Amino acid sequence: MKRNALQLLFLLATPFLLFTNCNEAPTETNSDTASGPPNIIVLLADDLGYGDLSAYGSQSIHTPNIDALAAAGMKFTRFYAGSAVCSPSRASLLTGKFPLRFDIRQHFDDREMHLPAGTLTFPRVLQQNGYRTAHIGKWHLGGIRIQDFTARTAGEAANPGPLQHGFDHYLCNIEDPLVRPELIRERKLYREGGKTLVRNDRRIDEIPKHWTEIKVDEAINVIEESRKADQPFFVNLWFDVPHTPYEPAPERHLSVYEKMGVKGDQLWFRSMVSHLDEQIGRLIDHLETSGLLENTIIVFTSDNGPAYQGSPGPFKGGKTDLHEGGIRVPMIAVWPNRIPANTYSFQTAHMTDLFPTLSALAGIEVEASDLDGMDLSQHLLEQTPLERGVLLWQMDLYKHFQNQGPKPTPYATTVAMNENWKLLADSLQTTELFDLEADHRELYNQLGQQDSIEQLLHTEMRSFLAAPRKSWKK
Amino acid sequence: MKRNALQLLFLLATPFLLFTNCNEAPTETNSDTASGPPNIIVLLADDLGYGDLSAYGSQSIHTPNIDALAAAGMKFTRFYAGSAVCSPSRASLLTGKFPLRFDIRQHFDDREMHLPAGTLTFPRVLQQNGYRTAHIGKWHLGGIRIQDFTARTAGEAANPGPLQHGFDHYLCNIEDPLVRPELIRERKLYREGGKTLVRNDRRIDEIPKHWTEIKVDEAINVIEESRKADQPFFVNLWFDVPHTPYEPAPERHLSVYEKMGVKGDQLWFRSMVSHLDEQIGRLIDHLETSGLLENTIIVFTSDNGPAYQGSPGPFKGGKTDLHEGGIRVPMIAVWPNRIPANTYSFQTAHMTDLFPTLSALAGIEVEASDLDGMDLSQHLLEQTPLERGVLLWQMDLYKHFQNQGPKPTPYATTVAMNENWKLLADSLQTTELFDLEADHRELYNQLGQQDSIEQLLHTEMRSFLAAPRKSWKK
Repeated sequence: MKRNALQLLFLLATPFLLFTNCNEAPTETNSDTASGPPNIIVLLADDLGYGDLSAYGSQSIHTPNIDALAAAGMKFTRFYAGSAVCSPSRASLLTGKFPLRFDIRQHFDDREMHLPAGTLTFPRVLQQNGYRTAHIGKWHLGGIRIQDFTARTAGEAANPGPLQHGFDHYLCNIEDPLVRPELIRERKLYREGGKTLVRNDRRIDEIPKHWTEIKVDEAINVIEESRKADQPFFVNLWFDVPHTPYEPAPERHLSVYEKMGVKGDQLWFRSMVSHLDEQIGRLIDHLETSGLLENTIIVFTSDNGPAYQGSPGPFKGGKTDLHEGGIRVPMIAVWPNRIPANTYSFQTAHMTDLFPTLSALAGIEVEASDLDGMDLSQHLLEQTPLERGVLLWQMDLYKHFQNQGPKPTPYATTVAMNENWKLLADSLQTTELFDLEADHRELYNQLGQQDSIEQLLHTEMRSFLAAPRKSWKK
Repeated sequence: MKRNALQLLFLLATPFLLFTNCNEAPTETNSDTASGPPNIIVLLADDLGYGDLSAYGSQSIHTPNIDALAAAGMKFTRFYAGSAVCSPSRASLLTGKFPLRFDIRQHFDDREMHLPAGTLTFPRVLQQNGYRTAHIGKWHLGGIRIQDFTARTAGEAANPGPLQHGFDHYLCNIEDPLVRPELIRERKLYREGGKTLVRNDRRIDEIPKHWTEIKVDEAINVIEESRKADQPFFVNLWFDVPHTPYEPAPERHLSVYEKMGVKGDQLWFRSMVSHLDEQIGRLIDHLETSGLLENTIIVFTSDNGPAYQGSPGPFKGGKTDLHEGGIRVPMIAVWPNRIPANTYSFQTAHMTDLFPTLSALAGIEVEASDLDGMDLSQHLLEQTPLERGVLLWQMDLYKHFQNQGPKPTPYATTVAMNENWKLLADSLQTTELFDLEADHRELYNQLGQQDSIEQLLHTEMRSFLAAPRKSWKK
């Protein structure tokens, strides 16, 4: 199955390289399905670090399917998550705005917090333009506690969930203080996650499979339904892996690492990434056999830097930290025959850009002035370098430690970045200034040595923190 | 030209992935040349860091030709240079022994020091087995001062050079205290290196080309002569790039980085790596059009970690330092249809292993008991995991600083490594102990917490430092 997916990805990756020598080779037979709006799949890993994929230089994990995906499209080296923790990052992906715009400054605790009702989201725009939209997997944006979906089913008021934010369909593990913490504490989120599922506001019977595989099964079902209905789809497939709890993935992913003497959480972690890679291969394989791959845009990324067992690659810090290790994540964009294969991008890009960029690729005009994201479609299709403009981050202070070293000090809660320059601050008290082009490891603090740049970025920060915010709070 | 090389590499990389779907595709027409002993090319970069190739996760440089080479064979994640500086590492590559065995504990200053006469080298073994052996490029193992090759031409005694160490042919820039330091100081080693060349102990007229391109021209000439003579060849092609002096590479390699706002030495550095990549593409292209690629083993690696402008990837330290950044280097091994393509290896391997491994692949039996290297051919051909055994490093103390941060402390001059455990010491005074499998960034010093491992490695160190040495000293 993996081999089939890889075969096709290599075929897709090499037309201009290969088919000049290989005119007799079978070409895609599904060109008739390649007309019309493109399908869109966003694959989001959870706490996967920049250094956790072999395509991004991992020292310890081999991810052939994701690597093949990278070879079939454009691989970004400077793509930033919306935050260094979960919920704010996810909010930025769906809304195209920095999470502070919604006063989202920390990860949600599954209690009251939620993405504000009535927020314009990317799935809503696609839905309004004829797409079948589905969210599958981790949500972590509120509204799928038992009391929420029960209330909605009864026609009562509740915090908004995926159906209220533009999705026609969803399948999640129930995100409730009575359910999720236990699954995590007892390390059974993946192996027993199929026991506590909610689909479209209805709790469903157990699916006795691994949660990572249930998600891909559900994605395939949605894709098949869309294909039969001849409707373009948006599948928002948010994996929980490789976030804790560290659990052994199915056996086939363990032996390769056991042979290397890897043990404990690090062994489970690697097996989880390999399992993720395999399941993504299965999904790509299905797209191929269904003839849908050619007209499907696939984006793969992660919500923030690595926690505990993961690797930030060459960067400083990890999850909960605003140094590069916490926010610079893998990002791969594939659209066979449209986004050039085997390409590698140094373009600065940000999670908020996915909304305007994917909309533009789908031929949908969005009012971008209200968004923090910018349309990168020209860069994706033609490799045009674009000026990204100022990027901003804010989050509450976290002092957690990561496996990849103690959290770097000084701590920061606010970042402004313009081109190569990155200013970090605790609220508005500046702490560090780095030239990322010369010093991507953030080793040489240039605070006090670049007055005009510092001034410019500090002004941006101040405006950002002072700007009006829409909040979930009642 | 680049495209042709890439085309072929993709063809070679994908037979089992692709040709099942592409039976009509043209196969290599040169299978008649694929019999007989394999040709061997060792490509060695100078001061190229683990993080300086896109195939190894570079954030700043795109190396499509070397990446394609990696895709056509096996890419190692845990390959170690023989030292963290130049000459000892090169000595280990040619001799299959740790450089301390020859009392080589620092880089040579182009004056008296040299690889001891009569040392058994890898090219000597190949030469004795019918290979045409050529050394092209940086040598830095002594014996090619003006006084040396002049004396040899006159039949007088001199320090041994490439011809005395098993090479039938060589082309070098004169390595002399009167020549090299000026080229480096005035930053014209690459652009004017063609003015001060020595070939087979004769100074030759200027070749008015870039030194990196002169080397590849020479390699192509050697390859063509061998092909005409129907003799297998060993080309030992040691590039000077991206070692200082930082000089602009030809213009085509500058604009991509200038657009990103990169300036000064960092701009020259990146252009030099891109130029190296292009020239390697040109060499591969020539092998293809000559029909020789299929039966040629190609190894690509670097002599030590990055200096100044380069990147150690995720590792601590760089050149002159025995943390991973100084000694863990890229290594790619390609032999089309023999070494499986698109493979990725976690095997611990060392520069001394190239001698017994490449000999074994060439069908030559060597008396391995006298070598520190081990035969990895089974791993290359069949992906068999091998126990590498203890690895040892010793060098004089360097306190240089690198661009990628101040040199990490404590300093070490001796290292013993067994499986995941790495013990560092200053002479025999232990300084750090790391579990590299869990902590490849060397952040958690476990000295004092793993008594039996520490004891074992310290004993190895002691024997290593006390062992008899063959020296170049008169």
